Formats: sequence, structure tokens, C-alpha cells
Amino acid sequence: MYRAEDARRYAGLAINQGIHVQKGQTLLIRAQVDCVEFVRLLTEEAYRAGASDVQVFFTDTQVDRLRYQYAPQEVLDNPAGWMPQAQADYLEKGGCVISLTSADPDAFLGLDMGRVGRGLNAAKVAAKPFREQVDKGENQWLVLGVPSPGWAQKAFSQDGPERAVEKLWDAIYHTMRLDEADAAGAWEAHSRTLREQCGKLNGSGVVSLRLRNALGTDLALGLVDGPVWEGGSSQTTGGVSFHANMPTEEVFSAPHRDRVNGTVYSSMPLNYQGTLIEGMRFTFRDGVVVDCDAKTGREALDLMLSVDEGSRRLGEVALVPVDSPLAKAGALIQQAGILFYNTLFDENASCHLALGSAYPSCSRGALDLSRQERLARGINESVSHVDFMFGTADLSVVGVRADGSTLQIFENGQWAF
Amino acid sequence: MYRAEDARRYAGLAINQGIHVQKGQTLLIRAQVDCVEFVRLLTEEAYRAGASDVQVFFTDTQVDRLRYQYAPQEVLDNPAGWMPQAQADYLEKGGCVISLTSADPDAFLGLDMGRVGRGLNAAKVAAKPFREQVDKGENQWLVLGVPSPGWAQKAFSQDGPERAVEKLWDAIYHTMRLDEADAAGAWEAHSRTLREQCGKLNGSGVVSLRLRNALGTDLALGLVDGPVWEGGSSQTTGGVSFHANMPTEEVFSAPHRDRVNGTVYSSMPLNYQGTLIEGMRFTFRDGVVVDCDAKTGREALDLMLSVDEGSRRLGEVALVPVDSPLAKAGALIQQAGILFYNTLFDENASCHLALGSAYPSCSRGALDLSRQERLARGINESVSHVDFMFGTADLSVVGVRADGSTLQIFENGQWAF
Repeated sequence: MYRAEDARRYAGLAINQGIHVQKGQTLLIRAQVDCVEFVRLLTEEAYRAGASDVQVFFTDTQVDRLRYQYAPQEVLDNPAGWMPQAQADYLEKGGCVISLTSADPDAFLGLDMGRVGRGLNAAKVAAKPFREQVDKGENQWLVLGVPSPGWAQKAFSQDGPERAVEKLWDAIYHTMRLDEADAAGAWEAHSRTLREQCGKLNGSGVVSLRLRNALGTDLALGLVDGPVWEGGSSQTTGGVSFHANMPTEEVFSAPHRDRVNGTVYSSMPLNYQGTLIEGMRFTFRDGVVVDCDAKTGREALDLMLSVDEGSRRLGEVALVPVDSPLAKAGALIQQAGILFYNTLFDENASCHLALGSAYPSCSRGALDLSRQERLARGINESVSHVDFMFGTADLSVVGVRADGSTLQIFENGQWAF
Repeated sequence: MYRAEDARRYAGLAINQGIHVQKGQTLLIRAQVDCVEFVRLLTEEAYRAGASDVQVFFTDTQVDRLRYQYAPQEVLDNPAGWMPQAQADYLEKGGCVISLTSADPDAFLGLDMGRVGRGLNAAKVAAKPFREQVDKGENQWLVLGVPSPGWAQKAFSQDGPERAVEKLWDAIYHTMRLDEADAAGAWEAHSRTLREQCGKLNGSGVVSLRLRNALGTDLALGLVDGPVWEGGSSQTTGGVSFHANMPTEEVFSAPHRDRVNGTVYSSMPLNYQGTLIEGMRFTFRDGVVVDCDAKTGREALDLMLSVDEGSRRLGEVALVPVDSPLAKAGALIQQAGILFYNTLFDENASCHLALGSAYPSCSRGALDLSRQERLARGINESVSHVDFMFGTADLSVVGVRADGSTLQIFENGQWAF
């Protein structure tokens, strides 16, 4: 249930443990207008923590829907760039950015999805200045969930609108550890645990993974050169620690864009641009999807793969145990394996892969490399980054070292060490 | 009362009779987030009328309030320019712009008004690219009122929040002529009447005005060289007709920045940056305020005059009869002469002057002139433009021609012809 006091604690946690705003820093907030109340809380907490300025970039999904419904294709193909450019300018001058995710997964339902998809992909291209600046690793950034009526109703479809929003707030408070007395302390302890797992993997010498389960997944996944596993807090190039996702349960690295072979099956549906894609299968050869299928949403799947050259290759591999708080919270919500209908929450409830761009920070020293040098290390590049879940209760992940020796990393969907 | 159907009619009137959006044109909407529902209506009506794109620029007064409360003075002195710059860029490429006015007049109450005033004035400077583009006369623009709870409660202070909002909607529907079956027709007829009054004044040869009433006003007000009276619809330099204000009841021109002498008393209070200024008196010599006073809000008055060199000179003189629908609607609201607490509505209920910038279109051919040439014609320049009301039921306005002959324009607060 939305309680002003808990919402303020949530905002405080986001500002101090999450984005970790620095004294004199400018904070950007990117939000849907229906999050305005929470935006105000974040704004006040940020100033109290010493931010010098808070700039809010509001958008409205219903205004976007009207554009996709009515605007000529030429306008959809050439979306406005002023907002991502202004955001990039602030980040270049040392700002940090919180993105609130709240959108109704069905916001574009009933429209011509070809038009919508093409438009959304063009919008990703227009957002490149922002994305590229974030990828430099100089700025703290944070993605945070805020319940909207549309999203809540989708996640809690058996409840009325108000009850659904209340339940979604409760789920968020739980996954943010706000039901513990010392939420900040609990959060730090959790973050430390994730960093410890990263430490073990980073010291393991593992250069590739073998993923297998009874769904039929059998994937040999080479990692980028000089692989780095990340999880819990991150650090900017200037040494400021922050959490890029709240909640976060994942430990992740980057697959090599040319070294993925075999087949992987999705274990949960994916909501892509308003279409539910279920029962996906991808077959890779030398990093590229050479064959794929889906039980529903095949057309959307094809769109997803055809954004650019990099959208057919992997950019992320993330490990999340099946007993994570988010997986549990998700299981309480729905039976069918359909969880939060929001990537931030769903990706933290299951092992997942992402098709599209990789985080350069997942290859040692790559933040300082040119685009060409990053590609040579196997770091994938795309305007797209779409997570899909493959984690199951019988998942096995085996790490393989350069000398051929192996390390059991996951067994029965859990950490093996 | 807010009725979805009437709100849509209001939006349709604004799009078709007001901004008169052209096929293939981009419409900008500047709005507070609490107007989002009406923004969506405007957006849909605009696309239906053939707009190719609608770009919405949302702000939130409460976020602004937090900035004025917490941000360092240096940040307030150097406000963000990305939004007005993006707006100016769209207008340069042929867009048109609707600004929604809805703000709570008391939004900044309780803050250090010196800090707020300095910050708001700096924001006006940051908005110069937008303002200067609008002043070129190339683009349609429109200011429109949308009830917010804060504003409604201020205007209808004896009612509860919901009832106040309902009453404010009713007042707006009335002044927009939406209670007539053919609102568009009624609006066009009204606009024609205003243009006819302009025509009479423009053919009169009047070069200065003498304003007098029993409050003590006695002002000799020279007009700019080549004075033009405007009212009702305007035309862009490209020949597209539009209404810049809805509602509009005024016929206006520009005083010469060096040729105003005498004294004028305000007839209604002014809400300036959250402070109510009552009982103002201004004494002018050669266009400049050389003495002034106020019964309350003297400090805010001084701030208002000290924005820049032009904020101590007049930029607008507007004539509104005391029996205009807005004056009547206003009189129904409150006894004390305090009306809508919103310039768009208050200025259309009474004769008024503005301290600050003039509209270059009020001097023949001045849209094509340089800044220096405009000043030489007497067109005032300022980042500020603040309207105050001087109209009374005994107001007399006499026009004086170059040869010294006179023309009674207003008598007992009404048109004399």
C-alpha cells in the first residue's frame, strides 16, 4: 500500500544508497507524469542530501500513444532528440540520472505494432547521445520502479485498480527491504553479498559458460576478453559508488559477441513493446541468432532482432538464484511464471540474457577504449538491449577456464558455491 | 464542472479557432503536469486537425518550489536553458505553441521572496530564445487556462477543493462561450467585433491617450510610432490567423517607451510571484516610473520594477469594457475586486497596462526591424511583462491626434463609440 512515510523512505534509500548523489551535483530524473508525487519526494531528498539542482524530464505514455496512432511515419522515423541531448549535456558536466520505470505494459495495445516498433526503435537511435554518455561510466545512474495504475493492473490482474496499486507498492517495499527496520543496512549487506559472488567469479579464471536445463537449453557462451563480473554496487570512473538498479539481485557479465553457440529457451514470457512473446527459442552460431521461434508473438520477436546488426547478438549474461526475494515475490503474484511485467523486476527474479548492447564495464579497462577496440574485445554494440529470462529450478551453469578445467557455478538454479 | 465532453469541445475550440494548427505543422504544448488530462485532449484534437507532431514540455511547480527552497543562489541565477531553446528550435522550423496556465498563485508562499523573485527573473532571461522567436510574429501562439486545485481554491476561496475546481471550469466554459450551442460561431463573431474596434482606432489618427478616473489616475500616454491596435485574431507573418489568448476581450497597443507622463492607480490587486500587491500607484516622467507606492506588497513591487532597464517602462495599453463577460464572471466570483488570480483571465476583465516588453506587432512594419530600430520607434524591451489593471466604472480615455484634436474612446468604463 502507498504510505507517504514508506514512499519517503524509499526515496531516501534511492538517493543515498542508490544514486548516491554527491554534494553540489546535478540530479536528472526521467519520469512519466503519473509518477509526479514520487518525483517530488526524490527531488526533496536529493536537495537534502546536497544536490545543487534537480532537473526533471517528464514524458507521458498516452501522449506517445497518440503520436504512434496519428503521426505520419516520417515523424515516427525521426523522433525528437532534444530531451536525450539535454540529458547527455548534463551528464557530460558531471550530473547523475535516475530513470523511473512505471509504464503500462499494454500502453500501445491495439495500435499497428509494426509502426510502433519502428518508432520505438528510431527513438532508441535518437537517445544515443544519452546512452553513449552513460556507457562512459563517468556518471552514477539508477533505474527505479514506481507503480502506475496500468502497470499494477497488469501485474495484479485479479485485483481492482486501487488494490493492485497497493499490492505493487507492497511488493516494491519488500524487494527494497523497506520492511526491515534498518533498510539501508540490509541493503548494504545484500550489496556486499553480491560483490562477494562477483569477487569469486572474477578470481576464477573462467572464460566461458555452459548453460543447460531440461527445457532444452544447451548453450556454450564465451565471455568478452578480460571478463568482469559486476553486481551490487558499481563505481564511476571517478570512484563514486552507486547502485544502477534497485532492486538488484543479479551478478552479470558480457558474452563475447562472436563466441556464442547452441540453443537457449526462455523460461518466462517477454513483454516487448506491448506484445507478449512466449516460449522463445534462439539458436546461435558464432554469436549470431541463426534460427529462432516463439509460441506467441513471433512478429514482435522478428522486430526485436532486426533493430540493427547488434540486436541479433548477446550483450549480457546475468545470474540470479531461483530463491531470490524477487523470484519469491514474483511467484506470489501470478502462477503462470508471468511476473512483474517490468524488466527491472522480472530480470532480477531470474537468470537472463540480453540481446543487444553490452556494458563496456564488463571487460577490464574497456571504458577507456575506442569503439573499434571494444568490438575487437567482443563487446557487443546496439541501440537495443532486451532482457529475456532463461532461469529454471534445474538450471546448471558450468564455467570453463582457458586450460579446459571447469567450475560448477549454478546447480539446480542456485549458486553452487 | 469538469465534463469530459465540454473539455473536449474546449480543446477543439483551442486547436481549430485558437492556435489554428495547420496540416503537417508541429504543435508544442507547454504545461504543468497537473494539466496532463487536458494536454491529452489537445494532443488528440491537434492530430485530428492534421498536426504532424505534438511535443509536450511538462514542468511541475512543486519541483520548482523545491528548487527555490533548497538550491544554491548560483543555481537559481543560472537556470536551465534546454527547454526554451528546444521550444525556440521547433518554432524556427515552423511550429506553433500552446501555453497552458494553471499555476497555484500561492505556489511559492512562505519562501524567501527575494530569492524566488531573483530566480524567476533569471528564468525569464533563460527563456529569451523562445520569447524572441515568438516576437518575430512567424508562429501562431496561444495562452489557455486550465483549472488546477491550487488556482481554483484561490479564486473560489469559500468553496471546498472539488467544488472550487468545478466552479472554475464553469467560469472558463462561460468565458469561452462553450455554453452556447455554436461556440465556434459565437467565438468568431466576438473576434470580429474586437477587430472592428481595432479598425476604428487604427483609422482614427490617434497618437496619444489621456487616461482619467476618480481614483486619481491622470496619465498622458504617447503611443509608439506608427501605432497599431490589435484584438481578436492575429496573423502570422505567413498569413495564418490565430487567437493568442483564449478568452480574449482586449484591444491593445503599445505605449511609447519615452512618452508617458503622469500618474496611474491600480484598480485591482496584482499577484506577483506569489505576493499580493494592492493599491499601487505609479508616477511616470518621460516613460520611466520615477515614483511608486503600494498599500501592501511594496517589496515585491520594487522587485518587479528592477528586473532590467525596460521593466520600469510601459509595454502595453489594453482597453476592456467593464461589462465584458470576463468582468461579469469575475464579479460573480469575489466581492473585493480580486478576480481570477491569473493574468490571462484578470487582464481580460479590465483595462490594463503592462510594465515591461511591448509586442513589436503594435508598431507598423516593426516585425522586420532590428532591435535598435524598434527601440527608436519607442517599442519597449524587457525580459519582463507584467499586467496591472486600472479600469474602473468611471474611466475616461481620450485619444489625441497629431493636430491636437481629440476623440472620446472610453466613457464611464465603456466604449464611447
